[in-house]
Amino acid sequence: MGSTQTEKTIIGWAARDSSGVLSPYKYTVRNTGPEDVYIKVICCGVCHTDIHQVKNDLGMSHYPMVPGHEVVGEVVEVGSQVTKFKAGDIVGAGCIVGSCRNCNPCKSDNEQYCNRKIWSYNDVYTDKKPTQGGFAEAMVVDQKFVVHIPEGMVPEQAAPLLCAGVTVYSPLNHFGLTQSGLKGAILGLGGVGHMGVKIAKAMGHHVTVVSSSDKKREEALDHLGADNYLVSSDTEKMQENFDSFDYIIDTIPVFHPLEPYLSLLKLDGKLILMGVINTPLQFVSPMVMLGRKSITGSFIGSMKETEEMLEFCKEKNLTSTIEIVKMDYVNKALERLEKNDVRYRFVVDVAGSKLDGQ
Amino acid sequence: MGSTQTEKTIIGWAARDSSGVLSPYKYTVRNTGPEDVYIKVICCGVCHTDIHQVKNDLGMSHYPMVPGHEVVGEVVEVGSQVTKFKAGDIVGAGCIVGSCRNCNPCKSDNEQYCNRKIWSYNDVYTDKKPTQGGFAEAMVVDQKFVVHIPEGMVPEQAAPLLCAGVTVYSPLNHFGLTQSGLKGAILGLGGVGHMGVKIAKAMGHHVTVVSSSDKKREEALDHLGADNYLVSSDTEKMQENFDSFDYIIDTIPVFHPLEPYLSLLKLDGKLILMGVINTPLQFVSPMVMLGRKSITGSFIGSMKETEEMLEFCKEKNLTSTIEIVKMDYVNKALERLEKNDVRYRFVVDVAGSKLDGQ
Repeated sequence: MGSTQTEKTIIGWAARDSSGVLSPYKYTVRNTGPEDVYIKVICCGVCHTDIHQVKNDLGMSHYPMVPGHEVVGEVVEVGSQVTKFKAGDIVGAGCIVGSCRNCNPCKSDNEQYCNRKIWSYNDVYTDKKPTQGGFAEAMVVDQKFVVHIPEGMVPEQAAPLLCAGVTVYSPLNHFGLTQSGLKGAILGLGGVGHMGVKIAKAMGHHVTVVSSSDKKREEALDHLGADNYLVSSDTEKMQENFDSFDYIIDTIPVFHPLEPYLSLLKLDGKLILMGVINTPLQFVSPMVMLGRKSITGSFIGSMKETEEMLEFCKEKNLTSTIEIVKMDYVNKALERLEKNDVRYRFVVDVAGSKLDGQ
Repeated sequence: MGSTQTEKTIIGWAARDSSGVLSPYKYTVRNTGPEDVYIKVICCGVCHTDIHQVKNDLGMSHYPMVPGHEVVGEVVEVGSQVTKFKAGDIVGAGCIVGSCRNCNPCKSDNEQYCNRKIWSYNDVYTDKKPTQGGFAEAMVVDQKFVVHIPEGMVPEQAAPLLCAGVTVYSPLNHFGLTQSGLKGAILGLGGVGHMGVKIAKAMGHHVTVVSSSDKKREEALDHLGADNYLVSSDTEKMQENFDSFDYIIDTIPVFHPLEPYLSLLKLDGKLILMGVINTPLQFVSPMVMLGRKSITGSFIGSMKETEEMLEFCKEKNLTSTIEIVKMDYVNKALERLEKNDVRYRFVVDVAGSKLDGQ
């Protein structure tokens, strides 16, 4: 794989335009700088955000774009200043590969909220070159944004934790909602939602899945281990649960009324939004005032929280529910994910795929 | 004033219908029970809520209704179980005169959030009789819902603290926003807003008043001691203040966009709503997610917080800015308050008024 003095040419799978179709793409990654870790990618999870990015749904996409931000790999070489990692280590990288290091969020271990953060892909690095993600042979990442995967954790299991996992763990941790015995609800049972059920259960919470239909009842109760299942249109059952939840993790990615869910919260309860929804959400002020409830949201998690979360998952033996595919299936996987047709996360076996598409 | 064995007939000023016009009204107050404090009213503040109640704006008004929930008075007699108060004490009563004592909010000193709380007026007491407020000769109140007015505090100054004061103090206290050096904004400069500036300044905060026009600039800066004044339509100045506030106390009582204000908050900043607004407020989810901001609200404060707040105001020598009127001016005061034509709180000198209207 060459020395730290050489730019390396690698193959990844890139989208070339807003069709979002990925295909093999050769590009160079930077020399492994003093603070850098050169990672040979083992596998990479497929997140819903990848679809928005490759299809230019947010109007900010640049091509060619190699997506992928739930990356697990093996360290091949490290820069001279890297002390935390050595060749052979199994490590992870997530949504962010850079931040300013000087702002208040950066200085308080909240670098995910830095206004100058650098995304793992579809962004520009400090060397002015585009960042490219984990659906590729390798990545070069500053050590600050690399985490150890705990020994014994299967790389494919670990991948979804690096975005979906920490996205749920971080707000529970930040808002003081980790102690056992709390009552939580999860709205929406996709990649993040299923992880929400698992992490909340591992914390010892009483977990209710709230859904718009009865379709996922068995899945939620029998397979994911939720304690209760509520259909949001069942007014009577919803009412029975009024004023009883410490928190609700709301992963619904489209417009939805907030009031039925605010009613479920008890005094000081928190509605934690995780879906990027550009249609305004609505509520009347007495719904939050009378009960001092909070409507809040959270965005991935810090590197510190990512490490804590991985240790937590290791300790609790928590696994993500995944479907492993090869790289030549990635376009089909994106299609199926868009239809929510996956239990619950696709993970691409990058190292086991022929990346040149031959 | 009779013994604890007698129901007493007193005079208050009551609304008789949704015209909201108050006039003298004779009624009885209950015997002073074992836990009760019989209070001769000295003065009573006029709150915006009084207008909603006397005019049946919420559709839940019962007449005759004696409003008033910022009550300061002198203890005349106490029940056999009352240990905290004795005749001659100067005491206060606020919005609430009862609660269930058994629910989680009650058991955690958050009785203002009890679902079975009893309002000081326009409610029904445990004896099935209507509660009546402080625009009256006297009130009988359970000792749990009575506070000491600190020695040396002028009753008329203390009255507005019992609702407007604690309404601002409680969320700052609850959300951990009391330490000096924080940066706060106050939206709206009415009874609650003016108290917000004073209490936040007394805590050592940097306080900005945000208003829709320039009209109150001098008032805010010179008279109330705010550090800065922002006009919400001044995009440039608003932008200069983006990402800089720890909290915003939002007292605007009508529909308004939340996004300009959410932008002012920094990481983990809190938008605290105090206005009961039944038109849905709106926001897009990324505005809270990217910065882990909270939209929350708060409702008056607990008895414990009321006591703490009074001590705090005493210690800081904090006074409310009031206009003292006699009872025969109360209808005019309500009219002027509705037009926001008061600096900043009317207080009725009840003891110094002829209540019989002769």
